Amino acid sequence: MPSIDLNADAGESFGPWKMGSDEALFPLLSSVNLATGFHAGDPLTMQRSIALAKKHGVAVGAHPGFPDLVGFGRRDLAVTPEQAYADTLYQIGALAAFLKVEGMPLHHVKPHGALYLQMLRNEATAEAVARAVRDYDPELPLVLLPNTPMEAAARRVGVRYVREAFPDRAYLADGRLAPRSMEGALVRDPERAAERAVQMVLEGKVAALDGGEVEVRAETLCVHGDNPEAVEIARAVRRALEAAGVDVRSYR
Amino acid sequence: MPSIDLNADAGESFGPWKMGSDEALFPLLSSVNLATGFHAGDPLTMQRSIALAKKHGVAVGAHPGFPDLVGFGRRDLAVTPEQAYADTLYQIGALAAFLKVEGMPLHHVKPHGALYLQMLRNEATAEAVARAVRDYDPELPLVLLPNTPMEAAARRVGVRYVREAFPDRAYLADGRLAPRSMEGALVRDPERAAERAVQMVLEGKVAALDGGEVEVRAETLCVHGDNPEAVEIARAVRRALEAAGVDVRSYR
Amino acid sequence: MPSIDLNADAGESFGPWKMGSDEALFPLLSSVNLATGFHAGDPLTMQRSIALAKKHGVAVGAHPGFPDLVGFGRRDLAVTPEQAYADTLYQIGALAAFLKVEGMPLHHVKPHGALYLQMLRNEATAEAVARAVRDYDPELPLVLLPNTPMEAAARRVGVRYVREAFPDRAYLADGRLAPRSMEGALVRDPERAAERAVQMVLEGKVAALDGGEVEVRAETLCVHGDNPEAVEIARAVRRALEAAGVDVRSYR
Amino acid sequence: MPSIDLNADAGESFGPWKMGSDEALFPLLSSVNLATGFHAGDPLTMQRSIALAKKHGVAVGAHPGFPDLVGFGRRDLAVTPEQAYADTLYQIGALAAFLKVEGMPLHHVKPHGALYLQMLRNEATAEAVARAVRDYDPELPLVLLPNTPMEAAARRVGVRYVREAFPDRAYLADGRLAPRSMEGALVRDPERAAERAVQMVLEGKVAALDGGEVEVRAETLCVHGDNPEAVEIARAVRRALEAAGVDVRSYR
Repeated sequence: MPSIDLNADAGESFGPWKMGSDEALFPLLSSVNLATGFHAGDPLTMQRSIALAKKHGVAVGAHPGFPDLVGFGRRDLAVTPEQAYADTLYQIGALAAFLKVEGMPLHHVKPHGALYLQMLRNEATAEAVARAVRDYDPELPLVLLPNTPMEAAARRVGVRYVREAFPDRAYLADGRLAPRSMEGALVRDPERAAERAVQMVLEGKVAALDGGEVEVRAETLCVHGDNPEAVEIARAVRRALEAAGVDVRSYR
Repeated sequence: MPSIDLNADAGESFGPWKMGSDEALFPLLSSVNLATGFHAGDPLTMQRSIALAKKHGVAVGAHPGFPDLVGFGRRDLAVTPEQAYADTLYQIGALAAFLKVEGMPLHHVKPHGALYLQMLRNEATAEAVARAVRDYDPELPLVLLPNTPMEAAARRVGVRYVREAFPDRAYLADGRLAPRSMEGALVRDPERAAERAVQMVLEGKVAALDGGEVEVRAETLCVHGDNPEAVEIARAVRRALEAAGVDVRSYR
Repeated sequence: MPSIDLNADAGESFGPWKMGSDEALFPLLSSVNLATGFHAGDPLTMQRSIALAKKHGVAVGAHPGFPDLVGFGRRDLAVTPEQAYADTLYQIGALAAFLKVEGMPLHHVKPHGALYLQMLRNEATAEAVARAVRDYDPELPLVLLPNTPMEAAARRVGVRYVREAFPDRAYLADGRLAPRSMEGALVRDPERAAERAVQMVLEGKVAALDGGEVEVRAETLCVHGDNPEAVEIARAVRRALEAAGVDVRSYR
Repeated sequence: MPSIDLNADAGESFGPWKMGSDEALFPLLSSVNLATGFHAGDPLTMQRSIALAKKHGVAVGAHPGFPDLVGFGRRDLAVTPEQAYADTLYQIGALAAFLKVEGMPLHHVKPHGALYLQMLRNEATAEAVARAVRDYDPELPLVLLPNTPMEAAARRVGVRYVREAFPDRAYLADGRLAPRSMEGALVRDPERAAERAVQMVLEGKVAALDGGEVEVRAETLCVHGDNPEAVEIARAVRRALEAAGVDVRSYR
């Protein structure tokens, strides 16, 4: 029976400000990437998000980002590799403490926003983050976008890693994600996202935005948690996967 | 052979700003309390401070504080017990990650500044911090001031704890530290601080500022790291303890 | 024709996080207290809130708070008078720059949350904030709660000031606001809040929670902007005031 | 009699952390660029730095930077033009409030670190900052590096501006500053920096690092405040300028 992990970013509230629909989203997922305080997610939010994940049997990963609350970690920041390493380790450890107290394992690490994007083009940053994950725990997987400098860096560093794919994002024939500025780059229709998810898991490929098909091999599918349709898309994707006989579960 | 631990706050630089004389101080200590990012100590500073501690064979504890960089964690902040618990856990975990990577144990937790002082008078805060330490690791000791609500809270919570004393601070006959506003509250002369340290360890008592003697029983002596005489005092205290046949070493 | 100002806190979003219903609330008010970056309200939010106020002809005041985003400025912080003075001046100036660019005057200053509450009991803080307002502009009024140490401090300092009252909060017969923990302390019914507003303006008094009536004299009425019923209450209050022949307008 | 302004960055302490030698530096300068809280310089530091400037008759400008304390505003941050505009306006206003209270004018605005550097290559950022300065006060000059996209943007926007030159930095024959990575890019010898300053002012040119001479026309000379030799260089530059009959004074 084929299986796949379904992940989303979560725990992105901060202090008095709420974000996302974690209560509705968690029952639909097998893993979540919890913000770790630098771009979102204060300590109390982290603790509560972990309690919610525990309740729903969802695996918890760390979602470290740039130290930029006002920009939500979505603005590129010229960090040194030493800073990227130390900032990642700090955030992993902070989240791990809350998991330890709950008797839950740290499931994975997935960088957030502009840090993730910087790792797609900057090998020094990608290696620094990968080393932080590996040094913290050699069994801990880094979630990454395959066929990119990010994957190459992970291989060089020798970190365990897991490939992710995006059923709600269009791909180009050369394997890259279609830039958000392209028409059709975002798949907003839940049923279409669901079909794409099934095709990715069962056939290892999906229609490309610029024609033809593109190979997509992944151990986890990401649903974007911060758009209004997030819950609808997650629900449709999960339902379609299960209807197609795919077991939705975390990969560890 | 009697023994005692000698601790000081350290790692209190932040980004481009330097504080303290860690390079000179670490060889004189057996344990350090490292700032964990909320009142001082960014991730890179934490990493470097741990490397310095490793080089000098010094045990490393976490020094969590209030989230108040500009006030250096020295301004009282009305946190809820839930916030005190979560903030403490977050900071413990962050520091523990750097220690894990270096193969070093987390030796203790000692709250910083206004958080420490709030624990001397606010039982809910004291219990919350104590629970965070205990929940993180039942073997991990909390460093505290004995004969205070802080010690009572630690006992109720069942956290392991270690008592500290201050050779460079005057005591009152009732066992309390003399308030800083009192004349003679600070012992600035290194040799006098050193004599007091020896007396505390060998006799379990010291002269009180308001006359007579006061019992002082402690497993660790704290030297204040942030005054100009810190290195001189630490050097004098260490030399005097060793000359008196006391083994200066961490308590675990 | 009697007149009164109607104010509410606003501009309390931060970066990606939204708070409040400013679009619906502004048309109902004559003045707003805009967060100035320390407890909420980043620069872009301030700029946009001012544009919204301009569109609706609403007067804009500064709403300085403690530097505590995660606690939303609602946790008491032990600032020195020097810090309270400098922090207030900094936040006033920051907001004033956006107003200057729009050709709008700075209408008033109203401290936020725990800073406001600290001024009700700590004269040094109250005087420091009052001096900052007066030194910045002798014509600029400080909004305060009358019959409190806050008003006494304002009088000593010689700052211009304006008294506020709360139609959605219950009063005690001795003139104080009923503590939020008391049953009935919050007036949640919009029509009852509206009746109280009219009575405050036309009769200068209102029913006390503990029996009898209490004198309430104010130049501005505050509607709490952060509860779900805020818009309903503001609408009912404004409607009732106008129906009673009261002109709702800012006081300068 | 020829005249020139001599400026340096200052007020770069933060909370408990000290930076720079402002007490020794201010008497040697005619204007200072004061940090405004985003990369350094808390409100109390701003207030004290202005008092120091007043005492020494030094003109005060705002030194806005990226919101990045830990990186000291030296890490490039991908801000939108809207954010650059609002962040600049916020910081200008904050500093202006302290000056207003002292009865001092805001003399100029000079962007800090990575923001200044981003303006040298990113026209949208340069225009946004220039618009903020112009909108705040059409008479307020922006300090910039001439013959760059920064100057072109200033001209398009119609902001008043003032050109600066660096006697302690080497220039290339094409007019650009020599990159710091080039041998000889930094002029560390105070006497040589002083000679260069005099030549810049009296002849409008200076020897280029890669041969020949390069035209350098400026209304203000900048001495870097954050290197150990800063005071020595400032002293030598000022002495040499005065010995050569140049009046060191601010340009307004």
